[in-house]
Amino acid sequence: VEERKDDFIRETLEGVNPADITELLEEFDAEDSKYVLELLDPEVGSRVIIELEEDIQSHFLEHFTSEEIAVFLDHLDSDDGVHILNGLPISKREEVITLVENEEKAGYLLDLLRYEDDVAGGLMAKELIKANHNWTIQRCIDEIRKQAENVQKIYSVYVVDDNGILLGRVSLKRIILAEDNAKIADIYDEEVIAVETYVDEEEVVQTMQKYDLEALPVVNVRGKLVGRITIDDVLDVITEQAEEDIQMMSGISSDVEEDDTVWIISKARLPWLVIGLVGGLLGAKFISLFETEIAIVPAMAFFIPLITATGGNVGIQSSTLIVQGLANSSVFSNSIFRKLVKMLAVAIVNGVILAIIVFGIVIFSTSDQTIAITVSTALFSVVLLASFMGTITPLILNNLGVNPAIASGPFITTANDLLGLAVYFFVAHQLYGL
Amino acid sequence: VEERKDDFIRETLEGVNPADITELLEEFDAEDSKYVLELLDPEVGSRVIIELEEDIQSHFLEHFTSEEIAVFLDHLDSDDGVHILNGLPISKREEVITLVENEEKAGYLLDLLRYEDDVAGGLMAKELIKANHNWTIQRCIDEIRKQAENVQKIYSVYVVDDNGILLGRVSLKRIILAEDNAKIADIYDEEVIAVETYVDEEEVVQTMQKYDLEALPVVNVRGKLVGRITIDDVLDVITEQAEEDIQMMSGISSDVEEDDTVWIISKARLPWLVIGLVGGLLGAKFISLFETEIAIVPAMAFFIPLITATGGNVGIQSSTLIVQGLANSSVFSNSIFRKLVKMLAVAIVNGVILAIIVFGIVIFSTSDQTIAITVSTALFSVVLLASFMGTITPLILNNLGVNPAIASGPFITTANDLLGLAVYFFVAHQLYGL
Repeated sequence: VEERKDDFIRETLEGVNPADITELLEEFDAEDSKYVLELLDPEVGSRVIIELEEDIQSHFLEHFTSEEIAVFLDHLDSDDGVHILNGLPISKREEVITLVENEEKAGYLLDLLRYEDDVAGGLMAKELIKANHNWTIQRCIDEIRKQAENVQKIYSVYVVDDNGILLGRVSLKRIILAEDNAKIADIYDEEVIAVETYVDEEEVVQTMQKYDLEALPVVNVRGKLVGRITIDDVLDVITEQAEEDIQMMSGISSDVEEDDTVWIISKARLPWLVIGLVGGLLGAKFISLFETEIAIVPAMAFFIPLITATGGNVGIQSSTLIVQGLANSSVFSNSIFRKLVKMLAVAIVNGVILAIIVFGIVIFSTSDQTIAITVSTALFSVVLLASFMGTITPLILNNLGVNPAIASGPFITTANDLLGLAVYFFVAHQLYGL
Repeated sequence: VEERKDDFIRETLEGVNPADITELLEEFDAEDSKYVLELLDPEVGSRVIIELEEDIQSHFLEHFTSEEIAVFLDHLDSDDGVHILNGLPISKREEVITLVENEEKAGYLLDLLRYEDDVAGGLMAKELIKANHNWTIQRCIDEIRKQAENVQKIYSVYVVDDNGILLGRVSLKRIILAEDNAKIADIYDEEVIAVETYVDEEEVVQTMQKYDLEALPVVNVRGKLVGRITIDDVLDVITEQAEEDIQMMSGISSDVEEDDTVWIISKARLPWLVIGLVGGLLGAKFISLFETEIAIVPAMAFFIPLITATGGNVGIQSSTLIVQGLANSSVFSNSIFRKLVKMLAVAIVNGVILAIIVFGIVIFSTSDQTIAITVSTALFSVVLLASFMGTITPLILNNLGVNPAIASGPFITTANDLLGLAVYFFVAHQLYGL
């Protein structure tokens, strides 16, 4: 298809959803993609670009001139436009904005560039339909008609007073059902949920999820309506947050992707590896205290990985459940004391079962009673202690205002390795009487 | 407030959003909650119940008679109603449905109960606005008026032919802007994305996310419009899926919550613990092959936890990045070969840094050159091998059609523990020449 058959490509792609064209382009190289994009209507082309994955997008835009990018921005909502601008080198941003034909849009973009991209102001679009509370329905419909081209999706019309202060909202359904000469003031819903521009994106997500909103108006500190956040942007935030949590649990310290450079990926992975290393060295130091014992009973060394691995697994399981409980805030329904009791019960059940299995297998294969008792006792204690650590650490971190998810990662594994070793050698020391 | 001051409570809660009342109720016991709910308008009360967390909800509904539950169902969309029914004992479900006053609603509920709750049919609501393609806009608006009470949120009107086959959609915006006597057939958009009832919920989420849809029509195998899925339901699915992935990574084998019974939690945690145990026992068996060596050089045992922990950490980091890459399908843009090369580069960078740190510390603290070389060489090799395992395992699982996220959990840790031991003792064996 890439023999530059203009008409054929144009015909084939006509009516195809931009998201599907995007998928197609991601398999082409930059030059071919650019060629295809230029055949498309800029309206469609701009939507294709916005659907591209972030890395691919910014790589891709390097092949376009500022003029060409400005044309795309002309056809995009301001929130999507700002995403594109944020992916450009700072020097290029202003140049592109001055080239945007629609002056209102250019103003929107300049406005939005001021916000950090993880707060409400950075998520919102400036395009929305607002109606003065003194208007009639007919006037409001005229306004919708006028704005229809700029605003892609209308969920509600926001009602403001003469100073632009947000008063309430009217759903489209209500507008359709109202008489043409009814006044907005008579039909609007005063209970509108809004957020201020500086609100964190996590809170935005929670608000929209809690109240099942598909659009959330954003106001400035004086209550003036300045934008709206739509549900599709929030979906992306949710997906990103879940990814970040998982990376945190895996000991990757900053948001990296497979496509990042070797050095960025290495750097993101190194901190937790070094912490694990320090833990391992402390463990080595600790075991070295038992050097003479190991020389006499080398079998003691055999079960070191068994103990540390089980401690790590149990700790991560416990902390994950607690972290998820905290996120769902069901924590308030259970007191910390009840939590700990339950955790203890689960640990005892699992600890007893694991200890019996290990005791059976060790006695069967070595017929060394002392080592079997040592290992199974230590294992049972480690399960208990690791559960306790896994439960209490995220709770403490949460109380300190630290994201408790960090505790589900290498942190808990490293701590439990050391704890496991201590328990194991303590039990061995007692039983062997060395 | 719980001195049964009816009027006061009613006044206070008037106009409060149902989601906020729900939060309040979650801190009360079942009896107090029931009392408050009965004071509320059933319209509001039903929305409060649907916002309750699943466990609390079903626990809570035990205190209501079938008649009372039926009243709530009368005020809920059919998808929310089915959620409530699914939380009831099977014996009670039919009784409640026969008590639902609105016969159309009762029919909807019976219909929806047939679907599994993880497919499109189980997510959809039957309430929607459909218009025959021959209608005029005016007729369509009349229909919206008639249905307005039943359908909470209208995003689009779906256009069907005389047999109910889905033809397209018209946005509310378009209806407002059209002339009253225009025909639906002239203004509707034929490009409507729909899913069939049996489509998996994950695919539903992907479709809605990809095309930025706030509602997705559901059709049966013959193309007949049977329901629609709204974005708020999909948000819940996304959150659930993310939780499941994290639990899978933590070695919790089925979807459990903190509130589940001790036995259910223990059972969900046991399988991976046992697998870890078997890994640990194999490790013990393996180390025992070097019993004589350890008796001579006990220092060899000191660094076992260091090696296994680093192997585990590196493996999980690698597999997480690959799993997330697979989920974002950016995998297709990079060949597997390039992936492996990059992984190798990252592993070399990290491996060299870690090996140098360890060599320095060990030589400084023990001045035993042989052990320093052994440990740092083994560490470097383990980082390389664990990266390789962490990269290749999810890719293989994915090719076999298994969810690759399972590889990020205890599986990779256990495998890498064994791998690490093998490398460590192999290197030690060579260097010590034992």
